[in-house]
Amino acid sequence: MKIEQTIVAIEEIDADAARAVQMVLDGKTKPRRSLGRLEDLACQVAAVRRTSTPSVGEKAIVVMAADHGVADEGVSAYPAEVTAQMLLNFARGGAAINVLARHAGARVVVVDMGVRVAPAGLEGIRSLRIAPGTRSLSGGPAMTREEAVAALEAGIAIAGELAQAGVTLIGLGDMGIGNTTAASALIAAFTGLPPEEVTGRGTGIDDAGLQRKIDSIRRGLAANRPNPVDPLGTLAMLGGLEIAGLAGVALGAAAHRLPVVMDGFPASVAALVAVRLCPRVKGYLIPSHRSVEVGHRIVLQALAARPLLALDCRLGEGTGAALAMGLVDASLKILAEMATFDSAGVSDSGA
Amino acid sequence: MKIEQTIVAIEEIDADAARAVQMVLDGKTKPRRSLGRLEDLACQVAAVRRTSTPSVGEKAIVVMAADHGVADEGVSAYPAEVTAQMLLNFARGGAAINVLARHAGARVVVVDMGVRVAPAGLEGIRSLRIAPGTRSLSGGPAMTREEAVAALEAGIAIAGELAQAGVTLIGLGDMGIGNTTAASALIAAFTGLPPEEVTGRGTGIDDAGLQRKIDSIRRGLAANRPNPVDPLGTLAMLGGLEIAGLAGVALGAAAHRLPVVMDGFPASVAALVAVRLCPRVKGYLIPSHRSVEVGHRIVLQALAARPLLALDCRLGEGTGAALAMGLVDASLKILAEMATFDSAGVSDSGA
Repeated sequence: MKIEQTIVAIEEIDADAARAVQMVLDGKTKPRRSLGRLEDLACQVAAVRRTSTPSVGEKAIVVMAADHGVADEGVSAYPAEVTAQMLLNFARGGAAINVLARHAGARVVVVDMGVRVAPAGLEGIRSLRIAPGTRSLSGGPAMTREEAVAALEAGIAIAGELAQAGVTLIGLGDMGIGNTTAASALIAAFTGLPPEEVTGRGTGIDDAGLQRKIDSIRRGLAANRPNPVDPLGTLAMLGGLEIAGLAGVALGAAAHRLPVVMDGFPASVAALVAVRLCPRVKGYLIPSHRSVEVGHRIVLQALAARPLLALDCRLGEGTGAALAMGLVDASLKILAEMATFDSAGVSDSGA
Repeated sequence: MKIEQTIVAIEEIDADAARAVQMVLDGKTKPRRSLGRLEDLACQVAAVRRTSTPSVGEKAIVVMAADHGVADEGVSAYPAEVTAQMLLNFARGGAAINVLARHAGARVVVVDMGVRVAPAGLEGIRSLRIAPGTRSLSGGPAMTREEAVAALEAGIAIAGELAQAGVTLIGLGDMGIGNTTAASALIAAFTGLPPEEVTGRGTGIDDAGLQRKIDSIRRGLAANRPNPVDPLGTLAMLGGLEIAGLAGVALGAAAHRLPVVMDGFPASVAALVAVRLCPRVKGYLIPSHRSVEVGHRIVLQALAARPLLALDCRLGEGTGAALAMGLVDASLKILAEMATFDSAGVSDSGA
């Protein structure tokens, strides 16, 4: 589906369904609202899916991988080859996201959005390659506008397929050496904050590397002069193919009335891009954790999203999303399975 | 087992096992320490269980219920009868803890430590009744020293049985109308903070009720004059039978080298009592969430424990513990199932 059609298809979430679910929860054997944000999750899923009886369903984590031209500027602790190596690791089931997705009962959808050298036709990797990585954002646009659109639409297509296959909860996961540089550049562009305030150590770079990273972003902002009122243009100039793809997944999920669980920094920036393209997406987003990466705090603030988990993770891949999915399922089971004051014969004070 | 024997059996947790597990985690395909506190959890379970290969095992939530004399002073939004009604709800599987324990794959062990009127021999309730509730702490000791010892030893026995049955992770859950009054009184006694700073609305009492609650605690501290250097005496004067029982569960679990997942305010105060009785217990405690109940923050500070979940819950019953158990299991699966840099052929920068 085209971006414009997708955006048109995205409705405001259904506040009536949320209210109906809260009323049901208020009849359960517990003080009103005593399950706090777990109750909010059930209400939000109801509002997204436009039903007062949302149930636990199929879950998927979409892990999109791509390379970044800026990685050649010494902005990461790892060489760019690791993106493709990790893609294989995902396909073989050995990465952290594979373990945590199994734990959550979610399938992992591994997508090559554009690693430099495509892995040789490995089963388990979906190839939606737009380009062999981006160009460096530091000297000009990382992507053409057309590439960004193609990546977004690839993500929209993936979300549509998952919806078709009966998936009812989608998590965002990213992999791309250099992608916290792109994410920091995007958040600097969207918020107007200076690069040094939104840039962290990513996978663990040293002081000199951090300085190079900030310099690359500063040069990138100067060379591209992104206009935050044009989110698509900003995404093309500074983003990555996996970030654009994940923004598309968020848009597509919202168009299909599916909640989207955010992950760490780059995946949350992708969600923010989707919200800048269509503010109604915001209601579809479920936060998971807050990365120790400094920019993540700022993205979550921009989305008015408060993390559910306090784990100090900074891995990406959708690992935080997988852990939060367990909480979403728990909230739906509370709604479906708990006894009511009436059915259990428990005195209700109304508190 | 007697309290003294149990305390003697509790060892310091095994720092070598934790270090060995961290080394294994450092070889997994992710930047070092990028799974943050999830890595800490695996290390802690290893240290508690004194093995470098801790695996996911059987889990149990011990939910202890008892009544509180102070409940007659209008300190709760619910009548005291609700304690026994909820005990039946637990036994029938309709309460929040039943739902969340099933979600976590944990069994629920429901224990009557002393509700006012014992439920008629219902299957699924373990009766370890010490007394038909406590006397009001506001006019003198809630329990005799002997009652407190009996309750502690009942908890120790339950932990021993669970260890014997192969359980490897124990969660604490409480139920008792009036028990946040007891918990606030205990934390005031242990920390020296004034009652108004450690007392909250519990299940949702109004302003006048909150004032009555603070007054009851103030009178209780004046009448009992607890000495915090004598944790057993303080527990007897101000505590509840379920709080004492859960403190015993924590001691017994530690003696059997089992990690203990804390829950909300009264259950965490029980863990604090166990630590005051034996400081080595601290290493065995795993935090879960932080209740909105004001005193819980202070207990967690006293235990230097940071919550894993940010859910704004305030239900008790072990619901937070059940949710955190999913994170503990996830951490052990990361340890057992993730590929290494070597096995996956991923370049390791050492970052």
